[in-house]
Amino acid sequence: MAGVVQRQLHLNAFLMEAGHHEAAWRLPQSNPRADFDLAHWIELAKLAEAAKFDSLFLADGPSLTGTGEFRPPGQLEPLTLLTALSQHTSRIGLIATVSSTYNEPYNLARRLASVDHVSGGRAGWNIVTSAGADEAANFGLVDRPNHALRYERAHEFLTVAKALWDSWETEAVLADKSTGRYADPTRLHAVDHVGGHFRVAGALNVERPPQGHPLLVQAGSSEDGRNFAARHAEAIFTAHQTYGRAAEFYRDVKVRARAAGRNPDSVVILPGIVPFIGSTEKEAADLARQFDDLRVPEYGLAQLAWNFETDPSVFSLDEPLPDFILARPELEGSQSRSDLIIELAVRENLTVREILSRLGGGRGHFTFVGTPDQAVDTIVSWFEGGAADGFNIMAPALPSGLETFIEHVLPILRSKGLFREDYQGVTLREHYGLPTPANQFHAIAD
Amino acid sequence: MAGVVQRQLHLNAFLMEAGHHEAAWRLPQSNPRADFDLAHWIELAKLAEAAKFDSLFLADGPSLTGTGEFRPPGQLEPLTLLTALSQHTSRIGLIATVSSTYNEPYNLARRLASVDHVSGGRAGWNIVTSAGADEAANFGLVDRPNHALRYERAHEFLTVAKALWDSWETEAVLADKSTGRYADPTRLHAVDHVGGHFRVAGALNVERPPQGHPLLVQAGSSEDGRNFAARHAEAIFTAHQTYGRAAEFYRDVKVRARAAGRNPDSVVILPGIVPFIGSTEKEAADLARQFDDLRVPEYGLAQLAWNFETDPSVFSLDEPLPDFILARPELEGSQSRSDLIIELAVRENLTVREILSRLGGGRGHFTFVGTPDQAVDTIVSWFEGGAADGFNIMAPALPSGLETFIEHVLPILRSKGLFREDYQGVTLREHYGLPTPANQFHAIAD
Repeated sequence: MAGVVQRQLHLNAFLMEAGHHEAAWRLPQSNPRADFDLAHWIELAKLAEAAKFDSLFLADGPSLTGTGEFRPPGQLEPLTLLTALSQHTSRIGLIATVSSTYNEPYNLARRLASVDHVSGGRAGWNIVTSAGADEAANFGLVDRPNHALRYERAHEFLTVAKALWDSWETEAVLADKSTGRYADPTRLHAVDHVGGHFRVAGALNVERPPQGHPLLVQAGSSEDGRNFAARHAEAIFTAHQTYGRAAEFYRDVKVRARAAGRNPDSVVILPGIVPFIGSTEKEAADLARQFDDLRVPEYGLAQLAWNFETDPSVFSLDEPLPDFILARPELEGSQSRSDLIIELAVRENLTVREILSRLGGGRGHFTFVGTPDQAVDTIVSWFEGGAADGFNIMAPALPSGLETFIEHVLPILRSKGLFREDYQGVTLREHYGLPTPANQFHAIAD
Repeated sequence: MAGVVQRQLHLNAFLMEAGHHEAAWRLPQSNPRADFDLAHWIELAKLAEAAKFDSLFLADGPSLTGTGEFRPPGQLEPLTLLTALSQHTSRIGLIATVSSTYNEPYNLARRLASVDHVSGGRAGWNIVTSAGADEAANFGLVDRPNHALRYERAHEFLTVAKALWDSWETEAVLADKSTGRYADPTRLHAVDHVGGHFRVAGALNVERPPQGHPLLVQAGSSEDGRNFAARHAEAIFTAHQTYGRAAEFYRDVKVRARAAGRNPDSVVILPGIVPFIGSTEKEAADLARQFDDLRVPEYGLAQLAWNFETDPSVFSLDEPLPDFILARPELEGSQSRSDLIIELAVRENLTVREILSRLGGGRGHFTFVGTPDQAVDTIVSWFEGGAADGFNIMAPALPSGLETFIEHVLPILRSKGLFREDYQGVTLREHYGLPTPANQFHAIAD
């Protein structure tokens, strides 16, 4: 079909300490102090950029992660780290998780706009509502606000933030040296927001960011999460154990986006994949086993208990999940992740020990074990079969797992014309093929 | 006196858009879009570092500055900008203003710790309590909290932040690959703070910063401000129009620091100076006049009204300040700055027009007009006469004013052995000769 441009995969490099596998820091080659070693992050960012990834991404939450006994419990504040990385890269998009529950819209809109400026239009914000009670306890609360309330706040947060990002019209600055007139105050807009969660006068004290506003990313999969994503998200990170579930989610979110009056193509859906790649199936399985053997079961049990908002003692390693968990109790935290674990356990009839092994690589994300060709087959089948617009690549060890993916999987995708040889644009929006949003104040003025 | 080390000046480069003078952006050579042009800031940071300044500094407030009509009304969020600059420099200290009134301790302590990590121990925090009603209106408040309450919050904020910065003992991370034990949880301390303003569980999710904690800077000069500084500040930025006033402030703060149980030498006092330098007195005066001629009086009147929390219409350009201002009304905002303006006006019997001219260069900071030798005489007399440990250099135009100071004033100071030829240390604390704070949790453990 001459003239038809091949639809392209989008790839995000999801970076995490010495790797996504919970025991990655124990590998002989790993830097166990990677979290606070800027050189580690610069190396990863340059690696992903040289491979022409659309973006890199850092997860986050404002609390210590667990007790620290078996896994690094902290990390650099991600917008700070991305800002540093922006000065060592020039094209790759830079996405950070920041909580809408434990920040103020004026401060956060300003910081994100500033990162977009200093990176030349490469900032993205993964909006999370912060599911943990441990996070709430760092912000004066006895417990987290409930699920619905957190999303209600997130929606209002986005409404305010978008107005703040638009508050300087492009034509606002005159910089007329001869008259001394710097700006046209009628083009600097007070947002005058008064709502249930926020009252914000505005305007923002930062010029409109190069991308209009940073790319908005979201990863919630609950009912509230999907509706929020349909309304605001431009890219979605999502966790699915099977093609079927991923395809169902994909269809559902695109329908919701259309219902919210948006172009479904402007919502880029990226399921996570944890790739254990070997030149043979056996080599890949051996690699996965090497990681699995390094796990400390206590750590996994604590994580499982955290997911289900219960105590580790309720689980027996060689039994299935207890009945009260299988009954899907209502949770205030990460509901969809808990549902996914139950589904996996039931579908494959797993003991707790087996569940921990399956979650060790990517906390519920799809774990792939096989050869580069098999990885490509899977990627292509999800991509062409309506389950993904691209993937969130979660290397079990870093940098080695990312290097393997780049050296052995990417060339095959490129040979099929499915992934860029070089960047065509400069901004993160350009990489994802997303438009620059119109300025709401300018639209009114016209 | 053989063996006696000459006491050394400390110099901070206070950077602001195209210069500190309110009309600097109108100069032929100025970049009027400097605020959002990263290249401008990188140039200034490299210039100050090449000249071996102790630090550079960015002022800030979370609101639009004025209407924007006559002067750039916004700027990049300063910790974001400093983080970017940290990647283009290796030694100079990096100090940003951030509000303790409109931030949460957990988030801000974490961000500052992260900047200290990525800069290799070069972060400083200028603590402000945010005097403006316009700032309050961006954070859900009808008006700012009163002066005393803001300082009460700031004190509690610092108490929490210091505990968070200490919450990882140096020995906390074991990273024992063989056993799988990552950290010793008994050396990661919950801060468990419960106070009037904050409840914070902790620990911080960032390893203790290289400097122990970022350098703490403060600029308040009111009674509350001085007591806060005596208790917490390690460096103080301050504005004085005369040697006498500066010396009085210097003595007072050192006495307060001693009374608070601190070593007065560990509080570095840096008055601001706005240098208009010429090779002759006439050349310097012409330079100052060039700037003055570019001022738009409306801008200065609006600033004056903001200082006195009143309306510009109460002022007449060719009259003295009105009586109700001279009566020193109690203000919720920047009390000490307002007192300083009244003092200046009364001492020199100035009309409003003359006041605006005197404030145009540095908003009340000491403005120097003269030759390099005269500048050195003034600097040395304040330094040796017990009014300063160094200076906050506020170039009227940037980069040109900083270049002039570096090329013509610094060599004379160096020839007198008063300023370093090269950095002796790496961290900001080392440049200022300040110790790394002890860890409060470690002290208890011993």
